[in-house]
Amino acid sequence: MPALDAVLSRIDANLDEALKRLFGLIAIPSVSTDPAYKGDCARAAQWLVDDLKTIGFDASVRETAGHPMVVAHAKATRRDVPHVLFYGHYDVQPADPLDLWETEPFAPRLADAPTGKRIVARGSADDKGQLMTFVEACRAFMQSGGLPCDVTILFEGEEETGSPSLPAFLAANKDELKASLMLVCDTNMWDRDTPMITAMLRGLALEEVIIRGATRDLHSGLFGGAAVNPIHVLARIIADLHDGQGRVTLPGFYDGVAELPEEVAEQWKQIPFKGSDFLGAVGLSTPAGEAGRSVLEMIWSRPTCDVNGISGGYAGAGSKTVLPAQASAKFSFRLVGKQDPEAVLNAFRAFVRERLPDDCRVEFQRQGASPALQLPFSSEMLSRARRALLQEWGKEPVVGGSGGSIPIVGDFKRSLGMDALMIGFGLDDDRIHSPNEKYELSSFHKGARSWARVLDALAK
Amino acid sequence: MPALDAVLSRIDANLDEALKRLFGLIAIPSVSTDPAYKGDCARAAQWLVDDLKTIGFDASVRETAGHPMVVAHAKATRRDVPHVLFYGHYDVQPADPLDLWETEPFAPRLADAPTGKRIVARGSADDKGQLMTFVEACRAFMQSGGLPCDVTILFEGEEETGSPSLPAFLAANKDELKASLMLVCDTNMWDRDTPMITAMLRGLALEEVIIRGATRDLHSGLFGGAAVNPIHVLARIIADLHDGQGRVTLPGFYDGVAELPEEVAEQWKQIPFKGSDFLGAVGLSTPAGEAGRSVLEMIWSRPTCDVNGISGGYAGAGSKTVLPAQASAKFSFRLVGKQDPEAVLNAFRAFVRERLPDDCRVEFQRQGASPALQLPFSSEMLSRARRALLQEWGKEPVVGGSGGSIPIVGDFKRSLGMDALMIGFGLDDDRIHSPNEKYELSSFHKGARSWARVLDALAK
Repeated sequence: MPALDAVLSRIDANLDEALKRLFGLIAIPSVSTDPAYKGDCARAAQWLVDDLKTIGFDASVRETAGHPMVVAHAKATRRDVPHVLFYGHYDVQPADPLDLWETEPFAPRLADAPTGKRIVARGSADDKGQLMTFVEACRAFMQSGGLPCDVTILFEGEEETGSPSLPAFLAANKDELKASLMLVCDTNMWDRDTPMITAMLRGLALEEVIIRGATRDLHSGLFGGAAVNPIHVLARIIADLHDGQGRVTLPGFYDGVAELPEEVAEQWKQIPFKGSDFLGAVGLSTPAGEAGRSVLEMIWSRPTCDVNGISGGYAGAGSKTVLPAQASAKFSFRLVGKQDPEAVLNAFRAFVRERLPDDCRVEFQRQGASPALQLPFSSEMLSRARRALLQEWGKEPVVGGSGGSIPIVGDFKRSLGMDALMIGFGLDDDRIHSPNEKYELSSFHKGARSWARVLDALAK
Repeated sequence: MPALDAVLSRIDANLDEALKRLFGLIAIPSVSTDPAYKGDCARAAQWLVDDLKTIGFDASVRETAGHPMVVAHAKATRRDVPHVLFYGHYDVQPADPLDLWETEPFAPRLADAPTGKRIVARGSADDKGQLMTFVEACRAFMQSGGLPCDVTILFEGEEETGSPSLPAFLAANKDELKASLMLVCDTNMWDRDTPMITAMLRGLALEEVIIRGATRDLHSGLFGGAAVNPIHVLARIIADLHDGQGRVTLPGFYDGVAELPEEVAEQWKQIPFKGSDFLGAVGLSTPAGEAGRSVLEMIWSRPTCDVNGISGGYAGAGSKTVLPAQASAKFSFRLVGKQDPEAVLNAFRAFVRERLPDDCRVEFQRQGASPALQLPFSSEMLSRARRALLQEWGKEPVVGGSGGSIPIVGDFKRSLGMDALMIGFGLDDDRIHSPNEKYELSSFHKGARSWARVLDALAK
């Protein structure tokens, strides 16, 4: 097991080379939701396999019904060390709307900012930049003599579309993927200077709803008033989903949603977090969630229902007096605690059907479902990771939650009983999923150093 | 003023000659939308001027930025009689798809059908056959001694392309075109045996609403629960616009909306119209409008509020867990009676603003506003026209509405303050705008007789 200092020095010395590698990966537009990019997803997977082989991993591309997985293994120099499974995803969100990007989304560049250099591109933060911090840490160890822990890596290419191939893949490869701890790098720092360990992840249930009325678009003058308007039906369903206090009205929705333990609630109150700053950064000022809840609760420990997209009728310039034959919306539910995604989706479908006029039909398109996950606050692994991050950043990490979901974490917890340590180096202003996504160069550099320290600490 | 019987006899005697004339007009392919037929449009206008001069009209071609207008005047034999303005259009839709025509579209022919002879050709019904019914009635009067009313005729050549030159032409020729009543022959009979007078046209107010929240699209996991979702805000506004009884909830919306006079309501109940057939034709079965109203009321005499299009967030394939920065919808209000479009739009804007959370801004994009046009049911002109049509057809005409707007009628109302009597002899199966367009010979013949009776009745 090489000395940690030597490994950290190697990471520092190799930063330029590491950036070049990351840019190579980012340049592959591996947009998982759009079939047009299927070949690019395969290329990204192969790129990762090639790079991991270069370091010394036993790496391979594994085909699925969707985009391929990447699986890689490497042993530690010593025996009887922890075996970690590192998870990341090489797929990215679509770059749209393209006209809001200052430069080409898949042409990564290093930009100067008052806070330092940053990498600007789709996928720079979510998740290519993040996953490469771990790869670079492994590279530095292996080039310095070897790994401190046994390492298995799993990269998937369908995280942005709800990981549809993952459950079957896990079931088929349980023995190969089983490890003592899961590591995930798809979360954020607390702030630019303060690391964070994410102990709670909200789950996610996704469903598209298509409401159909007449057999064709109708003239709103000739039929208006007599013919059902699917946009109105859909709007009423959406409006009915929340009450005046911001609570979701689905029957049974809050089953399994517990209040925070008093100790944790107290800790969260001490976190230097201002809801007004958080919202102010995106031009907002008023928490939109449940009345009486703090913003941290709203985004970490409370469930939500949101419409992510809606369409129906004429959307071009000017007016067209049409009664549309259909309208559709994409719904997402962020889940916490022990909420059952299937129960939520069942309640949702019933809720929609109850509000469907005789003259409408509904089609549901399931887009994915995963439960929330919570790491015990008393875990020894958690303590070691906290110390390692304290050493790298000079500040005690915040141990908190994440509003976003990482479906695989829940899947692994369920399938293999593995806990996950979620450490990420993104910042809240990274604009993931939005135009001009970026990743701080310091996140990339100190992220790799952090993983070196964490791997070292876990093995001791 | 010649005896009506003599005029009707002359129409009967001249039918063959009248058909020859109509065929001559139809043979000119005056397709307004296609520049290749520009010369033909001019030829059709000149053909009409020549024909009207033959009868004794003071007729002329008037150039516009587009296709020319035809304006013609003739005085009645007596003074102090009504002055009517007759409107029609000589332009036609393109004949495509040509291969679906059984014979040449611009080679009119008389075809036998189980229901009688019919004229088959592009423009036979829309609107050359219809406008010539009026010209033939005038011809018969003038050949019998003179017109019973002062008559001004306006034929345009751009109706099928939205009448772009009409508003300016009306404004520039107000004094010349001003009359006491407008007559239009571009509508249908109720059915093969029952004439119809269209006395109500719904108005239309259009407004696009754009709701903006955060300064950019947000990740629904990171911000979901705390950040306002403009789709939700818009959906609540849409849902709030109707109550559980299908009534529009805008304050003051029903100001100026009168109940039908009992006599009219009773007449509408007798109209052989089945709402279930009307809706069934487009796959629907349940009237969606105000509880307790008939389908005829819903589409003719009641106002509506409809969303014609909605968009916001991600609308592509699969899912994208985004909280959109904005959502927009195109609203249309069909107006009746004395509803004031500006008052409706003002109430609507206030309604939207009242429902706007602190964190949202709204932008309104006005798309147009025109009031309903309604000939008073008590109008003496209407009563006379009803009696005239009853005499010709032996059946009481349906006095109804049209849910759609006929923009030119609104233009005349706005520019010249004239009410319109819309009487047409087309049938629903005339296939206007489609291959094998036809006009019943009985429509042409009895149409001319009907206009003779109407002109006679108006003058009495």
